[in-house]
Amino acid sequence: MSTFGHYFRVTTAGESHGKSVSCIIDNCPPGLALVEDDIQPQLNRRRPGQSAITTPRNEKDKVTIHSGTEFGKTLGTPILLTVPNEDQRPKDYGDKTIDLYPRPSHADWTYLEKYGTKASSGGGRSSARETIARVAAGAVADKWLKEIYGVEIVAFVTSVGNIKLFGDADAMSADPAFLSLADTVTREQVDQFLPVRCPDATANKRMEERIAELRDQHDSTGGTVTCVIRNAPSGLGEPAFDKLEALIGHAMLSIPAAKGFEIGSGFLGAEMNGSKHNDAFIPAPELDAAAAKHGIPRSRLHTKTNNSGGIQGGISNGMPIFFRVAFKPAATISQDQTTAMYDASGEGVLSAKGRHDPCVVPRAVPIVEAMAALAIADAVMAQHARRMGIQIAKAK
Amino acid sequence: MSTFGHYFRVTTAGESHGKSVSCIIDNCPPGLALVEDDIQPQLNRRRPGQSAITTPRNEKDKVTIHSGTEFGKTLGTPILLTVPNEDQRPKDYGDKTIDLYPRPSHADWTYLEKYGTKASSGGGRSSARETIARVAAGAVADKWLKEIYGVEIVAFVTSVGNIKLFGDADAMSADPAFLSLADTVTREQVDQFLPVRCPDATANKRMEERIAELRDQHDSTGGTVTCVIRNAPSGLGEPAFDKLEALIGHAMLSIPAAKGFEIGSGFLGAEMNGSKHNDAFIPAPELDAAAAKHGIPRSRLHTKTNNSGGIQGGISNGMPIFFRVAFKPAATISQDQTTAMYDASGEGVLSAKGRHDPCVVPRAVPIVEAMAALAIADAVMAQHARRMGIQIAKAK
Amino acid sequence: MSTFGHYFRVTTAGESHGKSVSCIIDNCPPGLALVEDDIQPQLNRRRPGQSAITTPRNEKDKVTIHSGTEFGKTLGTPILLTVPNEDQRPKDYGDKTIDLYPRPSHADWTYLEKYGTKASSGGGRSSARETIARVAAGAVADKWLKEIYGVEIVAFVTSVGNIKLFGDADAMSADPAFLSLADTVTREQVDQFLPVRCPDATANKRMEERIAELRDQHDSTGGTVTCVIRNAPSGLGEPAFDKLEALIGHAMLSIPAAKGFEIGSGFLGAEMNGSKHNDAFIPAPELDAAAAKHGIPRSRLHTKTNNSGGIQGGISNGMPIFFRVAFKPAATISQDQTTAMYDASGEGVLSAKGRHDPCVVPRAVPIVEAMAALAIADAVMAQHARRMGIQIAKAK
Amino acid sequence: MSTFGHYFRVTTAGESHGKSVSCIIDNCPPGLALVEDDIQPQLNRRRPGQSAITTPRNEKDKVTIHSGTEFGKTLGTPILLTVPNEDQRPKDYGDKTIDLYPRPSHADWTYLEKYGTKASSGGGRSSARETIARVAAGAVADKWLKEIYGVEIVAFVTSVGNIKLFGDADAMSADPAFLSLADTVTREQVDQFLPVRCPDATANKRMEERIAELRDQHDSTGGTVTCVIRNAPSGLGEPAFDKLEALIGHAMLSIPAAKGFEIGSGFLGAEMNGSKHNDAFIPAPELDAAAAKHGIPRSRLHTKTNNSGGIQGGISNGMPIFFRVAFKPAATISQDQTTAMYDASGEGVLSAKGRHDPCVVPRAVPIVEAMAALAIADAVMAQHARRMGIQIAKAK
Repeated sequence: MSTFGHYFRVTTAGESHGKSVSCIIDNCPPGLALVEDDIQPQLNRRRPGQSAITTPRNEKDKVTIHSGTEFGKTLGTPILLTVPNEDQRPKDYGDKTIDLYPRPSHADWTYLEKYGTKASSGGGRSSARETIARVAAGAVADKWLKEIYGVEIVAFVTSVGNIKLFGDADAMSADPAFLSLADTVTREQVDQFLPVRCPDATANKRMEERIAELRDQHDSTGGTVTCVIRNAPSGLGEPAFDKLEALIGHAMLSIPAAKGFEIGSGFLGAEMNGSKHNDAFIPAPELDAAAAKHGIPRSRLHTKTNNSGGIQGGISNGMPIFFRVAFKPAATISQDQTTAMYDASGEGVLSAKGRHDPCVVPRAVPIVEAMAALAIADAVMAQHARRMGIQIAKAK
Repeated sequence: MSTFGHYFRVTTAGESHGKSVSCIIDNCPPGLALVEDDIQPQLNRRRPGQSAITTPRNEKDKVTIHSGTEFGKTLGTPILLTVPNEDQRPKDYGDKTIDLYPRPSHADWTYLEKYGTKASSGGGRSSARETIARVAAGAVADKWLKEIYGVEIVAFVTSVGNIKLFGDADAMSADPAFLSLADTVTREQVDQFLPVRCPDATANKRMEERIAELRDQHDSTGGTVTCVIRNAPSGLGEPAFDKLEALIGHAMLSIPAAKGFEIGSGFLGAEMNGSKHNDAFIPAPELDAAAAKHGIPRSRLHTKTNNSGGIQGGISNGMPIFFRVAFKPAATISQDQTTAMYDASGEGVLSAKGRHDPCVVPRAVPIVEAMAALAIADAVMAQHARRMGIQIAKAK
Repeated sequence: MSTFGHYFRVTTAGESHGKSVSCIIDNCPPGLALVEDDIQPQLNRRRPGQSAITTPRNEKDKVTIHSGTEFGKTLGTPILLTVPNEDQRPKDYGDKTIDLYPRPSHADWTYLEKYGTKASSGGGRSSARETIARVAAGAVADKWLKEIYGVEIVAFVTSVGNIKLFGDADAMSADPAFLSLADTVTREQVDQFLPVRCPDATANKRMEERIAELRDQHDSTGGTVTCVIRNAPSGLGEPAFDKLEALIGHAMLSIPAAKGFEIGSGFLGAEMNGSKHNDAFIPAPELDAAAAKHGIPRSRLHTKTNNSGGIQGGISNGMPIFFRVAFKPAATISQDQTTAMYDASGEGVLSAKGRHDPCVVPRAVPIVEAMAALAIADAVMAQHARRMGIQIAKAK
Repeated sequence: MSTFGHYFRVTTAGESHGKSVSCIIDNCPPGLALVEDDIQPQLNRRRPGQSAITTPRNEKDKVTIHSGTEFGKTLGTPILLTVPNEDQRPKDYGDKTIDLYPRPSHADWTYLEKYGTKASSGGGRSSARETIARVAAGAVADKWLKEIYGVEIVAFVTSVGNIKLFGDADAMSADPAFLSLADTVTREQVDQFLPVRCPDATANKRMEERIAELRDQHDSTGGTVTCVIRNAPSGLGEPAFDKLEALIGHAMLSIPAAKGFEIGSGFLGAEMNGSKHNDAFIPAPELDAAAAKHGIPRSRLHTKTNNSGGIQGGISNGMPIFFRVAFKPAATISQDQTTAMYDASGEGVLSAKGRHDPCVVPRAVPIVEAMAALAIADAVMAQHARRMGIQIAKAK
């Protein structure tokens, strides 16, 4: 399936060598103000070739709304978004080494195993361009969440290779530096640290230098992206299989190159004692009266600590939700690589071609935000379906 | 939704104070030999109160097959499995502190926020008993996968608190000790290390001691479970949102108390260079002729290293799949806790009751195996739907 | 799939020779008063052996709620309902003719083709007992709809063989006698005409005689059931594939023996002219103020005629919804039948066994009501998910 | 939801005044030869303005494949098909009567009730243009079914108003004239009777005259379309809710203006006796050896009669599947109509505009075929998922 979500549903289509990368958003609520300019900024943030001195080239990856809106408002009907590909010609099969050898740690080989057919672009849908459709759809979910609940979703780079913004001594939920940043950081602040998007001048500088070093070595590295979701209403997520952390984790692990996910106290939380890990409840500092009348009221309890990462028993409690995603190093490197032939007849050398981005993690930032928005929007609609029934019943 | 899977579909039901914990398995293929004794062993492994000297009490958590089989074989129709609860009386509301205070880091509060109603058991479906239904369903998927492809799924404890079976120096995919264990470890071997289920005498001993220590301190701790899936066919997983690691991650993060998931090289993989991380292809050591005729042939290529953890571009490549899950410390501790009242009218002390298991991670082992089996069985059926079409087309 | 609905989801399980016929209702809203006695009456109405002088034997087909309720209220968690089978022994394979010949127009043969395995009960899940699970689940949906919107769903027999309650001259939507009955008929009134359930003394009498006649001839006949849904809110149904008539039609055509479905003007509507068929709008006679505050207000327009059957463009308009379902004659007859053997080796005679009900249509009445309730409940929750978003947005 | 199918999944998007009407086909098997010219013919057949003397204007409703194919073959990845709208400007709201009065029996009013917002095209997605996306997707399913199993799907007009191709004396399954036509009729033969598409010279002529008459009267009429599916494999359809007739019925009743559906003996079958209605089995005339090796073998039994319409117990038996769909008269007529205002403030006259097609049933023919193909393709993939498991198990 190429669909994400049960209520707020997104279906994507498109390889790197077809006419477009596209998506249909089904069940987006009606009445949301929506034009292309609401979507384009996140697509621009996703584009390659960004740096502090390079203005994103807006003319590329330009999104068009085909349906589902009229006079700048959503109709409630399916929204088709398309972004044309620039190079739409499939590559001819030739005797280039790329036609003889599946690229190591790419999807060339597994696509052939899955589909019994070889796309000219190798693992066609595993191309980074596929994420364009997610970012476009996510921007719509993001806008709706912001308008309806004031939800704020902000991601940023927390490590490049072994250079880290925060140390490994404590779980992120127990690190005051992290918690303080998470409470306030904005996308605008993150983008002041282009091209790396690590919102700390020193760490950002070191990461930039590390990336430059790897470029010179024709190598690549991975990194982590951390994301915070503020103002998500309480009550989101389903008890058993569709716990909110499972939905968000699913979303994140579906991003190309993701190899790990942790939420709240995460892996280091497993080392804590329960007496320290448990989040004591406290009365919420103030009740947001405006929010309360919205049907899904803001929680009247907060927690003193937030090792839960805003989710308890699989359900959001109204506190900030934060999580981290690990991305492996880019598989495409500018070095020759010894590997086997498609037909298993022997090994040989797949020759390096061109120059490649040694760290794609900064570009994952808007993708993480998009997938977070899709997961939350879906959970919000699920809860609306339930909550409205409760509300009507109580009004009787 | 309380359903997992699109093809091999499991829906669960049951709180700790109802009549039973149950599940319906829909779309289980016909012709599989299946009786209660195929399911009971994993339920026994999940039960509390196990230790090296305590034989699991088989008479508890006894599963009954209600439908979907006849004369010991599956019919292809829905299979209802039920496990009765022993204590079926809902607790009366009283003036006990548990009725005034939501328990910290439990689901008491979020269930109230979600459903607008308070179950006597707090977060009813967040009870550990809910996992009984998963383990039962997983045992069926596990048996089918074993019979059809020889799939072997084995989980074991890799850390308790900060006591670890393997060090943190390398990603698990780069640690020869881990790789060697993963290639051969069996459930029988793991259960030689009851009650902790860490398949190494020294580490197991230290973990056992640490748990005893915490018990004396009325505290709890978390830990990690690592799982390996051997012999899964290549071609499983869908390119975009339903990458195999996303499906497995979703499955794992839906287990109560899970806070983190990593696959293949995982979080440490993000620190590696691409030139080292890339998994070079090699011809498969030998083609399994028996397997080849099964429609989904075993891959004719292997990889020299396996930082990908058996999945590339979201699709299995036929190599072992392995991943790690982090569990937070149990929220139930035998200490008084200061926290807020349900009505936010003030804070007070939730008094400790009884003695509790300070580390539930060993019991998560069969749950991790069950959810892994469900994720793989679903992906296998999705691929069968596609593969049979290819096969018929090619036969023409 | 054995699941109906996307939001209000029901999954059923159970053959006639297993331990039970059961269902899990997922996503049923919390706070609904629900005990077994709310469900049992419709199960009693479904039971065989009913007549004006025979009190339904309440001790049979007795439903048990396993989960999802506490202290007589739904928790919002999955509800497992089970009804035990009385005869739980699978039949032994013998040399009876039923083991040699697939019964004509039963599911014996197609189940074998589908599953490659033969259940002792032939087409196991095609047994009439499977409908027990639907009736149980439908009773829950029915109660919720009644409580939340005052929805009334009433079905009744409109023909047995060629004996008809209404003539064929006009579409039901153009027949004043039908419209008048549809506006007021209740389940209690329908059950005054047991065992046939045709709410007209004369027609009912003729139908009863016809059935007696067929019994004497060892034959069977079919008939039609008509159903009206009053007070369904406007706005239900989705524009494209999930038009409300498509959801209801799907539900009805999934009932065993259903061969036809028509809604509003139906088949005869195809013969009308548009100028007569179009339903002019009129202001609604009075606005139901109580209903208006419920979030999905009652429509402020009605239509003068109702050839649309309460649905326009696939979406309910708040007028009564009515439809008719055709059922084929029961395939089980007390006559010998010439047919082919399973192995296609030749033809022979399948001998008649016992006495059988010559017209099962009266028992379809509660099944039609149940499936209607499930379809409407699902559409209501889908619309709630959307409507609450609109409501919150407007409140801002 | 705007998605049809669980396995072969189609999601559509597009109103009449947006940029395009489009669909994404997910899970279409790889390796199918597919170019635009495979899809365009059915779109041409759907277009308005066709008559025996008018060549369909091929340059309109032109489909483009955006993704999912390469070098003329499907890749197995999502296929996006788009058909641009010619008039893409939403209509301005003005003081025209159409802005004051919801059109009788259109979706103007119910869309407003559902979405709380008014599209310039009234019930935006209820426009006939929405069916373009279905026809395009159906053409792909149709081609795959033909290649893999030789499935033939042919629809034709069987009535216009009260002028009928076949009488009402017998169920279609008991009418030799119908059965004989159903066995052999082709799309090419049907299109020899343009513009009405009733494959009988006399009936076709009378229908054409009737339509001309109505045009002069500024009125409209409905009609029926009958469809036959030949060579569908046995074993399709699921026992309980997703019986094959329920899936096909759902598909048909989702077509705009559909008011009725019957399969096999249909409504008249309800008047037959069981002894006559039961379809005796006979050995299949000859086993199709080529088909047999395809994994889903052709049934070795046929039935002497086919009142079941090719489906027993909800599962296909390999005999021809046939069904009839009733369409109401077109709601758009060239007459003034008295109706109520949107704001319920009073009634008035909605003035007639332009000239309209008095009978759209002939254009429904390719839509019926498309929806039939989508329903069958989905059922085939569901059965493949199950059948391949059986096959592998048996090979062991």
